[in-house]
Amino acid sequence: MKFIHTSDWHIGRQLHNQNLLEDQRFVLNQIVEFAVEHDVDAVIIAGDIYDRSIPPANAVALLDEVVNRLVNELKIPVVMIAGNHDGHERLGFASRQMTDSGLYIIGPLTKNVAAIELKGKQGSAVFYGLPYADPATVRHVFECEVTSHEEAMVKLLEQVHIHDSQDLPKVVISHCFLDGGSESESERPLSIGGADRISPSLFTPFNYTALGHLHGPQYKGAEHVRYSGSMLKYSFSEQHQNKSVTLVELDNQGKANVELLPLAAMRDVRIIEGELAELLEQGKTDVNREDYLMVRLLDKTAILDAMGKLRSVYPNVLHLERTGLMADNGRVELSRDHIKKGELDMFSDFFSQVSGEPMTEAQQQAMTAAIDELHKVESAS
Amino acid sequence: MKFIHTSDWHIGRQLHNQNLLEDQRFVLNQIVEFAVEHDVDAVIIAGDIYDRSIPPANAVALLDEVVNRLVNELKIPVVMIAGNHDGHERLGFASRQMTDSGLYIIGPLTKNVAAIELKGKQGSAVFYGLPYADPATVRHVFECEVTSHEEAMVKLLEQVHIHDSQDLPKVVISHCFLDGGSESESERPLSIGGADRISPSLFTPFNYTALGHLHGPQYKGAEHVRYSGSMLKYSFSEQHQNKSVTLVELDNQGKANVELLPLAAMRDVRIIEGELAELLEQGKTDVNREDYLMVRLLDKTAILDAMGKLRSVYPNVLHLERTGLMADNGRVELSRDHIKKGELDMFSDFFSQVSGEPMTEAQQQAMTAAIDELHKVESAS
Repeated sequence: MKFIHTSDWHIGRQLHNQNLLEDQRFVLNQIVEFAVEHDVDAVIIAGDIYDRSIPPANAVALLDEVVNRLVNELKIPVVMIAGNHDGHERLGFASRQMTDSGLYIIGPLTKNVAAIELKGKQGSAVFYGLPYADPATVRHVFECEVTSHEEAMVKLLEQVHIHDSQDLPKVVISHCFLDGGSESESERPLSIGGADRISPSLFTPFNYTALGHLHGPQYKGAEHVRYSGSMLKYSFSEQHQNKSVTLVELDNQGKANVELLPLAAMRDVRIIEGELAELLEQGKTDVNREDYLMVRLLDKTAILDAMGKLRSVYPNVLHLERTGLMADNGRVELSRDHIKKGELDMFSDFFSQVSGEPMTEAQQQAMTAAIDELHKVESAS
Repeated sequence: MKFIHTSDWHIGRQLHNQNLLEDQRFVLNQIVEFAVEHDVDAVIIAGDIYDRSIPPANAVALLDEVVNRLVNELKIPVVMIAGNHDGHERLGFASRQMTDSGLYIIGPLTKNVAAIELKGKQGSAVFYGLPYADPATVRHVFECEVTSHEEAMVKLLEQVHIHDSQDLPKVVISHCFLDGGSESESERPLSIGGADRISPSLFTPFNYTALGHLHGPQYKGAEHVRYSGSMLKYSFSEQHQNKSVTLVELDNQGKANVELLPLAAMRDVRIIEGELAELLEQGKTDVNREDYLMVRLLDKTAILDAMGKLRSVYPNVLHLERTGLMADNGRVELSRDHIKKGELDMFSDFFSQVSGEPMTEAQQQAMTAAIDELHKVESAS
């Protein structure tokens, strides 16, 4: 049994107001190609299929396209669970009418765990799809007393334990936060104050656990209890993460052998730092200048339309930090004189950028007088 | 081939802010029961499945429930097209993964018409599902020049004409406005100024046309070109309509025999008219006092909290019209004296309702003086 484990597609997500749909299509195509290349028996998506409970229509259309290629054209079964970002009812609509096709969508939590037996070319396995469910939902569905995320998960896993898989390996699919996991900035917390943490040891008894929620690929507790990570970098905090999907092969003893298949983004998400002139210069020869960038400008002077200038070279600058100015502001204890000097300097920078020439001595004196006058009025009022 | 033709379910719709989900579940259950009772080969829903392109989650869950009963439990195929209220991409998601189950959802318009052959216990038929599409959409999908709704429909029907149904009867499913059709207040116009009208004669060549959009059951051009009407009254303008689904049986010659199966609402939608005291009295013995009501009050005096009083007897009064007061206002040419008298009368009504006693002569004089004083101030300012 060989399958691809992926999660956190977040189709429809934006990065600093930038629509990522084409980037998502690009990387989803790679996942489909990996499925073909490695001749997998299934593709498992461990939640956060969409970014929002009400995804935009073109996000729905993109998922429809991908599912159609995998399930209808390539005959590769797809199993997906709803994550904390997904609208469970919406995602799960008509899921009972899809199973014959090989598409298994586990939407709202029900009393009976979804146990899906898939036949592989080299052996079969049973996949247990647990949609994201907070303690209140588990209490409601099972009419039982659970207060923490961990207790809720214990309740859900009871059914996996007692289910008779006819000696086939058991693969759990879950969307949760394992204790000790590394977060990124793009995950939405499941609860406040750490009450969402679950011990990895709950999952070690199973042959493999395909997890979603954390956006960096990682395992916790044991190598077969694993987050695939998201398919794209969804925040600048992830600039150094290597995104991938996880290729899992269960051998005859049910042991999971794991390989990470790296995903290449259409446009990388990264942070660059330097003075404006320097960045503009290096941008001219940067083959990846289409990347999504956060720029940290080290210049200590005011700059007119820094964003416009940067975008003339790096078209996809999404965020600008004036690190140089901030550092100065942080360092200097501002006195009245310092503020005055600051204002003249600022205007002087502005003037020289607009006129193309520095201020003359006379102009500087006139400006100083004007600023003084303004401060007098300000103090008097 | 025997099937139920229904349309305009508008699941998730509200009537004057009243959630209708339980009413919708009630009547959907009847449709399921009709399907069993008449042993039909299919259920056809001609658009406006939901009321909005983004239906509430509980509306999605209700449709899921109904579809599951029909398709999975009863093995009755269901064919539905997107109407002008539906979000085509959302409704159509994963529809290609559902067809094996017997659920056919025709969402966004595509170049190839959906031709669905269904085998009945007494003969088969081909169903052509045309989702609602305005001229711009047809232009875009077919890359052709059409400007009116009629031209667009001609374009769509071309494919139905040329499709080889192997001599099986052709049933068209469409959501549009036929010329001469009777409107209700609850339909959203497809375009302004009548440009949405389509000649019924376009559909007469087919064995049956199952139409959606107009909420009153009716046929146009020929008896086999037919609107089933909505499953509930969605405005007070529909109070006298009899809601039903259409039972269609195609005989061996492909001729459609039609029977209307009446739907009973959990709560009727109707208008009652009278003076408050009279309505309150008759409400005590009205076995249908739970109905959704518009009340036209004929009283000519001001009434404190008329809505509250009515709802103590008729709990689901949704709208109140003070017909009696309006009639007076329309009739009387108001002079300054009339206004004064009006104000005193109004206050006098109010006073007697609050205190339970009429105003004394002295109180009336004091009030008249107060009103005069107010008018003086008003004139001076």
